[in-house]
Amino acid sequence: MRIVVLAGGIGGARFLRGLQQASRDADITVIGNTGDDIHLFGLKVCPDLDTVMYTLGGGINEEQGWGRTDETFHLKEELAAYGVGPEWFGLGDRDFATHIVRTQMLSAGFPLSAVTEALCDRWKPGVRLIPMSDDRVETHVAVTLPDSGERKVIHFQEYWVRLRASVPAEAVVPVGAEQSKPAPGVLEAIAEADVILFPPSNPVVSIGTILAVPGIREAIADAGVPVVGLSPIVGDAPVRGMADKVLAAVGVESTAAAVAEHYGSGLLDGWLVDTVDASTVERVEAAGIRCRAVPLMMSDLDAAARMAREALTLAEEVRGA
Amino acid sequence: MRIVVLAGGIGGARFLRGLQQASRDADITVIGNTGDDIHLFGLKVCPDLDTVMYTLGGGINEEQGWGRTDETFHLKEELAAYGVGPEWFGLGDRDFATHIVRTQMLSAGFPLSAVTEALCDRWKPGVRLIPMSDDRVETHVAVTLPDSGERKVIHFQEYWVRLRASVPAEAVVPVGAEQSKPAPGVLEAIAEADVILFPPSNPVVSIGTILAVPGIREAIADAGVPVVGLSPIVGDAPVRGMADKVLAAVGVESTAAAVAEHYGSGLLDGWLVDTVDASTVERVEAAGIRCRAVPLMMSDLDAAARMAREALTLAEEVRGA
Repeated sequence: MRIVVLAGGIGGARFLRGLQQASRDADITVIGNTGDDIHLFGLKVCPDLDTVMYTLGGGINEEQGWGRTDETFHLKEELAAYGVGPEWFGLGDRDFATHIVRTQMLSAGFPLSAVTEALCDRWKPGVRLIPMSDDRVETHVAVTLPDSGERKVIHFQEYWVRLRASVPAEAVVPVGAEQSKPAPGVLEAIAEADVILFPPSNPVVSIGTILAVPGIREAIADAGVPVVGLSPIVGDAPVRGMADKVLAAVGVESTAAAVAEHYGSGLLDGWLVDTVDASTVERVEAAGIRCRAVPLMMSDLDAAARMAREALTLAEEVRGA
Repeated sequence: MRIVVLAGGIGGARFLRGLQQASRDADITVIGNTGDDIHLFGLKVCPDLDTVMYTLGGGINEEQGWGRTDETFHLKEELAAYGVGPEWFGLGDRDFATHIVRTQMLSAGFPLSAVTEALCDRWKPGVRLIPMSDDRVETHVAVTLPDSGERKVIHFQEYWVRLRASVPAEAVVPVGAEQSKPAPGVLEAIAEADVILFPPSNPVVSIGTILAVPGIREAIADAGVPVVGLSPIVGDAPVRGMADKVLAAVGVESTAAAVAEHYGSGLLDGWLVDTVDASTVERVEAAGIRCRAVPLMMSDLDAAARMAREALTLAEEVRGA
């Protein structure tokens, strides 16, 4: 079975690990979000791609969900001693190697998709990981700074990591998305997929950004195979992260049903909500999206695998319908 | 007193620390060798400038004489895991920060001299450290590889660090030197100096490379102030390093007297040899260079300070003559 998964960072990566356990023979292609990529210290950093790669490759810091295991932060300490920032982005010594290798390959002319493949040669994540685009797309967020009242457009990472989404996101803009093209292999993987899954990743800045690359949304809608998603909102709050903050920016309420409607029945065939949101199933189905309520807390690998099985089961229901 | 010192790496840096102790009020300008600079992993590495900066700034690994104290090598381990080399050059996690800051500033358009000044803002070495040139000069070495018999021109660091000078250097070429210009401040410092010193640095690939930048040798010869050097060769062998290997390439025998003659009386006014080489004083003086035999083993800071005092004393003798 060929499965295509659109993935952001931590939530996507943990779901993928569950999917691998649930479906050992599946041929999985991951289309990774690159909208939260950032240039730091002259290096190209791809947080979501790396989180998927490290998580599936066994190098992730399990507790925090991002970054490397057995990590040290000496380089970052020294940069701070030189007065060189930003200090709010946590790059560890081991993690730096990935960004150095990536930057060197990009400078040598390789596209990000080829670089990602080369990095995965080491990590062997067991999936094919493709960035959504080889073109630069960077999510920016419009905010009003609380102290000065100044309206400012800042990089998503500055909003998410430095400000910890503590002020409302007034607008979320994937800069460069309109001019971007899907990376080689993206449209082909979608066209050849048997199932397409949206993990419980952020619907705006992760999956939404991937869908903003011209051609990807259309390819998914036209693939003619079940498209099933899992709600990142459980009981009116994000399972993790601060998805509610950016949902507000696009005028979507923080409920499992509203996210499904945001994707829409033109794209989404099936939607899993958590059992605490069972009462919302009817609303989602009224929007033309088949819906089931199942436990959606990814507390461990087995829980993630059960969620993946439920998603595949719902996909089969959709297919049989 | 304004002192200008031409310096390579470890020997130059340790001598400078002695000079600071010997002459606390002196205004010291160091013209640093950049001929062994190398681009590694997309980063600009300046081993000699950094050794001077770390040594005088209190950040050096005292035992090995280069690199940072309290160092870890996680980034390098990870690069090796990615199969990205070279593995033979020992860059530590803390040290990497210097190269990242430097590379970022160079990419932003700052010349190396301005970058070096900015890095020294942190380290406060107590001297003014200027690279010999803002232009790229890279020492290359012609060798015959022992296995294949292939004649090859390799970067000096590959010769020195990877091959550990285990094959003869057939030629030593400071590539780019002819087209290079002294960095801002170099000629001015020489013109305003009261004394110019050559520490026991490598006469070919350290001091020789600095002198290969058009204008520097002439400025020193024309400065009209005492120019005093210390022999890096003691009893027919280099005090440290493998200076004999590169001396052979330029047709100079590995003796204290031969190195003095190599600099020549047109450049050098005074020369210190070690007490074990006392018998050679007469030969050096016959070449028109005032010479004294004093202990030249820089076993500790006090020994280095004594050597610096001897050099300054000889400079005063030259001045009074």
